[in-house]
Amino acid sequence: METGRLEAFSDGVIAILITIMVLELKVPHGTDWNALRPMLPTLLVYLLSFIYVGIYWNNHHHLFYATRELDGVVLWANLHLLFWLSLFPFATAWMGENHFAPLPTAAYGGVLLAAAIAYWILQSTIIARHEANAAIREALGQDLKGKISPALYAVAIPLAFVSPWISNALYVLVAALWLVPDPRIERRIMAVANAPRANPAPERARADER
Amino acid sequence: METGRLEAFSDGVIAILITIMVLELKVPHGTDWNALRPMLPTLLVYLLSFIYVGIYWNNHHHLFYATRELDGVVLWANLHLLFWLSLFPFATAWMGENHFAPLPTAAYGGVLLAAAIAYWILQSTIIARHEANAAIREALGQDLKGKISPALYAVAIPLAFVSPWISNALYVLVAALWLVPDPRIERRIMAVANAPRANPAPERARADER
Amino acid sequence: METGRLEAFSDGVIAILITIMVLELKVPHGTDWNALRPMLPTLLVYLLSFIYVGIYWNNHHHLFYATRELDGVVLWANLHLLFWLSLFPFATAWMGENHFAPLPTAAYGGVLLAAAIAYWILQSTIIARHEANAAIREALGQDLKGKISPALYAVAIPLAFVSPWISNALYVLVAALWLVPDPRIERRIMAVANAPRANPAPERARADER
Amino acid sequence: METGRLEAFSDGVIAILITIMVLELKVPHGTDWNALRPMLPTLLVYLLSFIYVGIYWNNHHHLFYATRELDGVVLWANLHLLFWLSLFPFATAWMGENHFAPLPTAAYGGVLLAAAIAYWILQSTIIARHEANAAIREALGQDLKGKISPALYAVAIPLAFVSPWISNALYVLVAALWLVPDPRIERRIMAVANAPRANPAPERARADER
Repeated sequence: METGRLEAFSDGVIAILITIMVLELKVPHGTDWNALRPMLPTLLVYLLSFIYVGIYWNNHHHLFYATRELDGVVLWANLHLLFWLSLFPFATAWMGENHFAPLPTAAYGGVLLAAAIAYWILQSTIIARHEANAAIREALGQDLKGKISPALYAVAIPLAFVSPWISNALYVLVAALWLVPDPRIERRIMAVANAPRANPAPERARADER
Repeated sequence: METGRLEAFSDGVIAILITIMVLELKVPHGTDWNALRPMLPTLLVYLLSFIYVGIYWNNHHHLFYATRELDGVVLWANLHLLFWLSLFPFATAWMGENHFAPLPTAAYGGVLLAAAIAYWILQSTIIARHEANAAIREALGQDLKGKISPALYAVAIPLAFVSPWISNALYVLVAALWLVPDPRIERRIMAVANAPRANPAPERARADER
Repeated sequence: METGRLEAFSDGVIAILITIMVLELKVPHGTDWNALRPMLPTLLVYLLSFIYVGIYWNNHHHLFYATRELDGVVLWANLHLLFWLSLFPFATAWMGENHFAPLPTAAYGGVLLAAAIAYWILQSTIIARHEANAAIREALGQDLKGKISPALYAVAIPLAFVSPWISNALYVLVAALWLVPDPRIERRIMAVANAPRANPAPERARADER
Repeated sequence: METGRLEAFSDGVIAILITIMVLELKVPHGTDWNALRPMLPTLLVYLLSFIYVGIYWNNHHHLFYATRELDGVVLWANLHLLFWLSLFPFATAWMGENHFAPLPTAAYGGVLLAAAIAYWILQSTIIARHEANAAIREALGQDLKGKISPALYAVAIPLAFVSPWISNALYVLVAALWLVPDPRIERRIMAVANAPRANPAPERARADER
C-alpha cells in the first residue's frame, strides 16, 4: 500500500480545516471601526489556529516523506489525528467568540493536547513499522519538541481557570517553538529519506516513483 | 481510463464530508459546563459518523487499489456512493440535535443502509469488469462484513421506533466490526493487487505507474 | 505546461461544490414526518444538481484526458466554467427553498445555460489548440448533446414563467440525456487519447507520464 | 523535498477559498426581482474576488512550475500567502453586504495588499534559493505587474474614505492587468522550466518526474 492516497486525503482534510475556520469569522454588522473591534480576539485566535494547523501539515509532510510501510493501523492512527484536528474550528470559534473565557481556553488546550497525543501515536506506529531501519528511527525518534509540547499543554489547561492569559501565552510559546526553523533536523530527515534503501521490495520501489 | 482522477475526486469529496460535519457543531452560547453538556450527544454522533466516513474511505482505498478497469458505469456507481455519503452531515446533525429521537435515528440508519447498498453496487460493478481475473473476484467477493452490515441496518431502522438506543447500539456494533483490524483479508487483497498481471495492455501498465 | 495541476484544482473545486450543496439542506426543527415533508423539494433539487455536477465532472475528465496543449487562455476558460458551476449551490438553494417558484426556476436554468456555454467555450479553446490533430477534433467536435442542451435550457428559462414544472421537466430531460451511457463515443475518445501521437515533444511525453 | 505535496495542498486551500466565497451569497427570501436586486453588489464583489483568487492560482502554478528547491522557509512563506488569501471570503462578504461602504472597501484593499506582499515574499524566497540559476531569476525577477499592483492597492486604501468607487475601480484595473494574456512572459517561464538543468541531483530529477 503506498502513501500517496493517504497523503492526498490528509492534505485535503487539513486544507479544508485551515480554510473553514475562516467561516467562523462572522461578518460584522456595522461598517466602522467599532464593528471591527470585537472581532480582534477572534482574528488573533484564528491566526494562532492557522499556524497550528500549518505546523501539523508541515510535520505530517515530513513524517510521511520518510515513511515506506503502511497498513490499516497506520491509516486509523492517521484518521485519529485528523479527528482531533477537525475539532480545531470548533475550539477556535468557542474561545474567540467568548474572548478567552476560562473553560473555552481550557477546551482549546484540551484539543491541542489530544492532537499532540494523536500525532505521537501516529509517529510511534510508523516507527514501529520501520524497526529494521535504524536511521529513520533515529531521525524521528529524538523528538524533543514533541515531548515538551504536550507537557506545556497539560500545564496550560488547569491554569486557564487561574488566568486564561497564562494558558494562551503557553499556546503561543509552543507554536513559536515549532515555527523556529530547525535546519539541522530537517537536513537529517531529508538525508534519511533520500538514503538508498538496502533492499527495497520491488513494490516499495514502484510506490516511491509516484 | 485510469483510476487516478476518480480516486482523487472521491478523496476530495470524502475529505470535505468528514470535515464539514464539524460545521454542524454549533458553538455553544455560554462558557461553562452547562453550555457544553447539551453538545455531548452531537459530539458522540459526530464521532460515530467520522468513523463511518473513515471506514468508507479505507474500503474505497482498498477497492480501487485492486481495480484496473474503469468506464462510465463505474464512474456513476462511484458518484452514486458519494451521493449517499454526502447525506451523512445532514443525518448526523438531525440525529445529534434531536438527542436520538426515533425518526432521525431511523433516517440515520436509512442513509447508512443506502450507502452500504451503493458500495455493494460499486463493488459488484467493478468485479463484473474483472471477470477474467479470478483472484480479484475472490479477494473482493467473499465480503462477509459487507453482507452483514446492511442486514443489521435494516433491522435497526424499524427498531428506532421501539427504542432508538437499540438502533444506535447496532450502528456502533457495525462500525466496530469494520474497525477491528483484519490483517488476513488485507494481506490477501494486497497480494492480489500486487500480483503480476498476465497480459496488461500497454495503456493499463502506464496508468499503473501514475 | 501539463494538465495535472489544472485537473487537480478543478477536481478540488468540483468536489467542494458537489459537497457544500448539502450544507443548504437545513436540518428540520421537528422530529416527525411533518418536519421532513417540506424538505422534499429541496432534496429533489439537490439530487438534480448533484447529477449535473457529476455530469460536468465526467465530461471534464474526458475532455482533459484527450488534451495535450495548455496555456493561459485554457486556464481562464476553465476558471470561467468553474465560476458558473460555483453558482449551482446558490441556484439550487433558491429554487429548492421556494418550492419551484418561477423566477428561481428561471435563474436555475440561467446558471445551467451559462455553464453549458462556458463548457462549450472551454472545449472550443482546447480544440483550437489541437488543429493539427484531426482525430481529437473529430472525437470532441461532433458534440450533439452539447448543442441540444443549451437550446433546451434557453427554451426552459422563459417557460418557467408559464409553468415551472415544464422547465424542471426539461432540466431533468437534459440530465437524463447525459446520464444514458454512450459507450460508442466513450470508446472513440479513449481510442484517440490512447493513440500513439505522431511527434510528441519530449516535454509533452514526460508530462503524460504524470 | 519535492514540490508535489506543497502544490497539492495549496491547490486544495485555493480551491476551497474560491468555492466557499459562494456560501456568503445568502439565498434571498423573496422570489421576485426585488429580492434579487440587493444581491447585485454581492455578486459583483464575488466575481471580482473569484477573478483575484484565480489570478493567484495561475501565478502560483507558474511560480512552482519553475521551482526546484524547497525548504521549511518556503513552506512557511507559502502558508503566509495562504493565510492572507483565506481572508478573501471575509473581506468579500463585508464589502458586498455593505454595498461598498468606505471602511469595508479599504479593508478589502488591505487584504489585497497583504496578499500581494506575501506573494512577493514567497517569490523572493524562491528566487534566493535559485541564486545559481540565472535563467529562473531572470524569468521571475522582472516582475513589473508584481511591483505596480501593491502600489495601486496602497493608493486605493486611503482613497476608499474619499470615494469607494475610485478604490474599486483601481481593484478592477489591477485584476484586468493580470487577466490580459502575456504570452511573451509565459513562453519565457516555460522555456526556463523545461530547460535541461546542468547537474540535477539524482533526487531532484526523480522529484521532477512526479
